[in-house]
Amino acid sequence: MTEFFRVITADQLVHLLGGFDRLAGEFIPLDDSLGRITSRDVVAPEDLPEGARSTVDGFAVRAEDTFGASDSIPAFLEVAPAVSMGILPDFEIHTGQAAPIPTGGFLPRGADAVVMVEYTNAAGANSIEVTRPVTVKTNVLEKGEDAKSGDVLLHAGKMMRPQELGFLAALGITKLSVHRRPRVAVISSGDEVIPMDQKPALGQIRDANSHAVFALVREAGAEPVLFDIVPDNAGNLCETLKQGMAHADVVVMSGGSSVGTRDLMVDAVSSLAGVEILAHGVAIRPGKPTLLARCKEKAIVGLPGHPVSALVVAQVFLAPFLRYLQGGQLEKGPSGHTVKAALTTSIHSTIGLEEYVRVRIEETGEGAFAASPVFGKSGMLSTMVKATGIIRIPMNTEGFSKGTVVQVIQS
Amino acid sequence: MTEFFRVITADQLVHLLGGFDRLAGEFIPLDDSLGRITSRDVVAPEDLPEGARSTVDGFAVRAEDTFGASDSIPAFLEVAPAVSMGILPDFEIHTGQAAPIPTGGFLPRGADAVVMVEYTNAAGANSIEVTRPVTVKTNVLEKGEDAKSGDVLLHAGKMMRPQELGFLAALGITKLSVHRRPRVAVISSGDEVIPMDQKPALGQIRDANSHAVFALVREAGAEPVLFDIVPDNAGNLCETLKQGMAHADVVVMSGGSSVGTRDLMVDAVSSLAGVEILAHGVAIRPGKPTLLARCKEKAIVGLPGHPVSALVVAQVFLAPFLRYLQGGQLEKGPSGHTVKAALTTSIHSTIGLEEYVRVRIEETGEGAFAASPVFGKSGMLSTMVKATGIIRIPMNTEGFSKGTVVQVIQS
Repeated sequence: MTEFFRVITADQLVHLLGGFDRLAGEFIPLDDSLGRITSRDVVAPEDLPEGARSTVDGFAVRAEDTFGASDSIPAFLEVAPAVSMGILPDFEIHTGQAAPIPTGGFLPRGADAVVMVEYTNAAGANSIEVTRPVTVKTNVLEKGEDAKSGDVLLHAGKMMRPQELGFLAALGITKLSVHRRPRVAVISSGDEVIPMDQKPALGQIRDANSHAVFALVREAGAEPVLFDIVPDNAGNLCETLKQGMAHADVVVMSGGSSVGTRDLMVDAVSSLAGVEILAHGVAIRPGKPTLLARCKEKAIVGLPGHPVSALVVAQVFLAPFLRYLQGGQLEKGPSGHTVKAALTTSIHSTIGLEEYVRVRIEETGEGAFAASPVFGKSGMLSTMVKATGIIRIPMNTEGFSKGTVVQVIQS
Repeated sequence: MTEFFRVITADQLVHLLGGFDRLAGEFIPLDDSLGRITSRDVVAPEDLPEGARSTVDGFAVRAEDTFGASDSIPAFLEVAPAVSMGILPDFEIHTGQAAPIPTGGFLPRGADAVVMVEYTNAAGANSIEVTRPVTVKTNVLEKGEDAKSGDVLLHAGKMMRPQELGFLAALGITKLSVHRRPRVAVISSGDEVIPMDQKPALGQIRDANSHAVFALVREAGAEPVLFDIVPDNAGNLCETLKQGMAHADVVVMSGGSSVGTRDLMVDAVSSLAGVEILAHGVAIRPGKPTLLARCKEKAIVGLPGHPVSALVVAQVFLAPFLRYLQGGQLEKGPSGHTVKAALTTSIHSTIGLEEYVRVRIEETGEGAFAASPVFGKSGMLSTMVKATGIIRIPMNTEGFSKGTVVQVIQS
């Protein structure tokens, strides 16, 4: 039985994961950039807008012509040619004139404000009355007001949402640099493990781990590569590990849950040339047998054999690590969103271990939530499906009593 | 100027969207099902596990042989053959015997419990002492305890997360029925609008809307199809609309922001054979000129022309609608996760309109957040990028005062 001679804390594990370099940038089309993270600042190549534009439907005027205008004493203005969309007006607004202008229209020379159509009335064939004064720049978006040429539009490290895509499209930025997605080799091992499309003989089980990990890796924005199941034998494991290292940025191994299988995994990793074992175990529950190694700047993560433990470790550490490699922040704890919820029962925890308790979140009305621990024997996959969140209990806490409002990470 | 003769409330809009049928199911491979929603119950084809398995490394025993065992008076048991992974044991455990068994190993006949290796000591070459008693079924996962043949594993309407994939893989379910993804035609129009890869002449602007909407549609799990920009002319608009209807389940139109452009959009939609205009406007801000129509069971959504308004309406109504079509719940309000935050300033709102205020969320320590409204002239795209959340102010509320803790939808 291999000793856990290097057991580290959850905080140390996060620190070690943060010691890996983020992946390099690649230049990709804007429409493919949703969810990716910029690897360089994005700079405005020009002004937006390129000239003063109206933000309303109305009349482009010289503001001073409207001073003092009211319902009882309106300002009378002569109607100039109308501004059309898509064309820069080729005329000038002189004192006493007003040009009909649609929302988004470019202001004619001489105009410095726009009166909303609601505050005007027709006054004969060729003039209008203005019933409210406007000041200079009212209802006008000035040249460069949205973005000035040379401005940093997005700093490096910004995740691309639909709004960022729209903003860059408006500035003609059709390609940009984002961090590369990690390729992740997903390797399952175990003499008893068979592919999911086969019928197990009594004593065998189907490979559940690698399909859950495959999906989790993809959910984290990375590109999983599923390897064939490796029998419990050091030579085969070592060979597959080398193939994984050759094809991927990160190798994730999940083995059987018995001590013997785990020893083989540790031995196979240890046998790689230039490997550095960073952690032989982590002071967390579940997930103590988690393994982390570095080899040629690539990370090797050995998940615990229990499918449920493997999933929790993957949610709490692997997913944030994969996002970190793509430019995100590395935060301990399951990635995803959090919600505050009151515990429906007390939870006890062991001092010296950071614990993760899977819970079911239920809305109790008006934005309030309750969280109930999901119990079940270890190895029960159905409990994974029942849980909708995870509570983290810090290492030096004995647990939380019933009714405590805790931060629940939606999973 | 076309009258808004059918202005509805936000609640009515949600009700109307819920009147569309969800999309039919399709049968897809398990590994492709992440994020999809089941369209039928998924039923267990067999028991899981298929026989009693150990949940620990230890010794398979008859529980009664350990009754009363303690450190001072251990139970002595004869060591039987070891259980191997992947093979059903072909021997039986008799009274007084204990078989070494790894985690996940199948119990031999006669054994009804497993003693953890931690509570055993070697006692000579062929026997062990057990220092703690176990009761029947201790450390054993029984046949069918995780799932019984015929059980509903997942009900229809369940979103597939990594854990659901793992669970179904364990049961050999390699394909399943999920709701189809909607195809969404994204149509931009406007004489002044040019493709993002062209240099605008003064007076022209690049198409920002359709790239933002394209990304938002994709983020909602749907399949966007981007159409060429349509000039402001009823014939062209109508023709493109028909093409969109032929290719897609939902047509999303975003036009210029001027009243004239909007009138053309309304006219083009109205001219379709068999069309029913469900809403000519919605009592929301921003987003009043939102249009909804139904034609041959397909939805046509006309977004407001202002890019910022278009994005808010797409976040608040279009994204949840697209998720609803795929089997999700239709909830008013921006899709995504929420966080409670204290307002850094008062926000005023107009009675009779449901308002959406874009805010920037900042953490103020220990899981507490503050939300500050993002101001900026209408039409400024940079404000979209600054905002990280949306606050919904109900129709009959005059606003929220500074310090109020409100629900913020992360966007």
